Amino acid sequence: MRGANAMGARNVAEDGIWHGGDLATARALFPEAPQPWIDLSTGINPIPYPLPALPLSLWTRLPGADEEAALIAAARAAYRVPVQAGIVAAPGTQILIELLPRLAPAGPVAILGPTYAEHGHAWRKAGFAVTEVSAAAEIGAAATVVVVNPNNPDGRVLRREELARLAAGCAARGGLLVVDEAFADFTPEASLVPGLPAGVVVLRSFGKTYGLAGLRLGFAIGAPGAMARLAAGLGPWPVAGPALHVGARALADPAWLAEAGAARARDAARLDALLAPHGRVVGGAGLFRLLESPAAAALFARLGRRGIYVRRFRDAPERLRFGLPGDEAAWSRLHAALLADAPEAPPPA
Amino acid sequence: MRGANAMGARNVAEDGIWHGGDLATARALFPEAPQPWIDLSTGINPIPYPLPALPLSLWTRLPGADEEAALIAAARAAYRVPVQAGIVAAPGTQILIELLPRLAPAGPVAILGPTYAEHGHAWRKAGFAVTEVSAAAEIGAAATVVVVNPNNPDGRVLRREELARLAAGCAARGGLLVVDEAFADFTPEASLVPGLPAGVVVLRSFGKTYGLAGLRLGFAIGAPGAMARLAAGLGPWPVAGPALHVGARALADPAWLAEAGAARARDAARLDALLAPHGRVVGGAGLFRLLESPAAAALFARLGRRGIYVRRFRDAPERLRFGLPGDEAAWSRLHAALLADAPEAPPPA
Repeated sequence: MRGANAMGARNVAEDGIWHGGDLATARALFPEAPQPWIDLSTGINPIPYPLPALPLSLWTRLPGADEEAALIAAARAAYRVPVQAGIVAAPGTQILIELLPRLAPAGPVAILGPTYAEHGHAWRKAGFAVTEVSAAAEIGAAATVVVVNPNNPDGRVLRREELARLAAGCAARGGLLVVDEAFADFTPEASLVPGLPAGVVVLRSFGKTYGLAGLRLGFAIGAPGAMARLAAGLGPWPVAGPALHVGARALADPAWLAEAGAARARDAARLDALLAPHGRVVGGAGLFRLLESPAAAALFARLGRRGIYVRRFRDAPERLRFGLPGDEAAWSRLHAALLADAPEAPPPA
Repeated sequence: MRGANAMGARNVAEDGIWHGGDLATARALFPEAPQPWIDLSTGINPIPYPLPALPLSLWTRLPGADEEAALIAAARAAYRVPVQAGIVAAPGTQILIELLPRLAPAGPVAILGPTYAEHGHAWRKAGFAVTEVSAAAEIGAAATVVVVNPNNPDGRVLRREELARLAAGCAARGGLLVVDEAFADFTPEASLVPGLPAGVVVLRSFGKTYGLAGLRLGFAIGAPGAMARLAAGLGPWPVAGPALHVGARALADPAWLAEAGAARARDAARLDALLAPHGRVVGGAGLFRLLESPAAAALFARLGRRGIYVRRFRDAPERLRFGLPGDEAAWSRLHAALLADAPEAPPPA
């Protein structure tokens, strides 16, 4: 469920997009569940980057040009942004998704799906005709194409060569290829940023990899003119002072990133083993796994009653997405909940 | 100067709008100035609301619907928003200024000036013809009118009756009256929010009054449909978790607000007395004073060389805006800098 911003104006129920991460929904669905909730409904790293000390001036002053420049420099290095490309920082990637339609020519938009629903929603809100296609071959004559890579929720990865071919097609039609690399930090070899083709805008998210989704920080990378238009849509001081500071620190720490990537890969393998008896793990990326099972709805309820919230999908009721548990207590509760009432559980002694 | 977001895309020098608050500019202008800089270039309360403890979950989790609802409830009460009106929270008022043009019909926009330059900039970027008028009587047939009330930098206040008359004119022409109440928190009796007329959007800023401009938090208040369109432009999770929490706490603390208002009023009177020998204080609001003097440029340089940064105006070189010093050390340095080299200073003993 989305937030309740503009109370009385945005109707959560009518909004139509389910998101992970909102425990208010979990609590409403399972009011009797034991506390605390274990939230596995997102693809957010459960082990956050350690928050550095935050000088009071980050809160009290308007974010300064020098702090913003430091963040941008760190992001350029971390994402290996070519010198001739532009980059813009925003309070979360989501608001960049809302702004992308102003970069594209009129005409149909193809989104490689199923994927993160806010892409299609943003383009439709902006008046574009959106088609969800299930393979790159079906894109047809769409001038604007959106690919989430690695994809959420199924982890599908398009190779750089394939993306470059898509980009060339979009460019030839006067359009735009959007590549949302929200989950690419642990597999940078697949990123389109270092050799950025013309007509491509890449989105990078800070909060998921660094486990700091509440900070709100994301980036768009592309042609300088296009990035200037996104920056103009945001206006000055779009990113909070603490986010500038934490982001600059974390993005300049490749050792933490490498360790986190290795640790989360171990967690993902452990989760796959736990899930194997309950269905088929059909995909995933470094921070989540996608389970397919005819009993998915029952499993969602079984976990929910035990205070474990996973991500279900309105359009794919046989699928559940699992984030990674963050500590041994969470692993134990997940393990116990998966065993409980299951046909394969041994009878009590 | 504005921030350097989208390095290589947004050119600070070409941008054309001067802002207060960017000490990087001060340092570049006066590299020999003594440290630390005293920044009087903004209208930000120098005594911030005390930051509450921030649970780690505010940083790690996506901002929750319940936290957003708590902020909105506190803002509704603090600003006395009528139940039938909508309100939307954003990461700073600035981004709402960027989104306002999508609420207005095509046609000329009149801005009561001189005022905060980002209003005109945002409407021009969106393709509107903008006229700056110096009095409400000159608005003519503009369907959309922007008023900053109290005005920045001169503190001009339009009475509610006058604003209601403007609103009625805009509504009759199918347009919109935007009232930016960024500096209205200490004089709530002038706010248009409680009896919000049709066709009005009011902006309220959190960071200035509460001395937490780095937090990035602002609000728009207006018709539910219009606010839903602003919320759609922001997308979900626009406001960071810490900002939701601090904002909800501070906006529910009228005692702090009353004390801060009284203390800043005393500071403003003290500043007026200090400035009186150096020109004419032609206006101001609760957090800044506007000085007019033929020697303004020399005074700007004299203060800058002593590490005190005030706000100058490209289009009004005889004016300087002074924020309020935040402690006795700052008052003393300001006092000494104002006396130094000045003709009215007594000769050294």
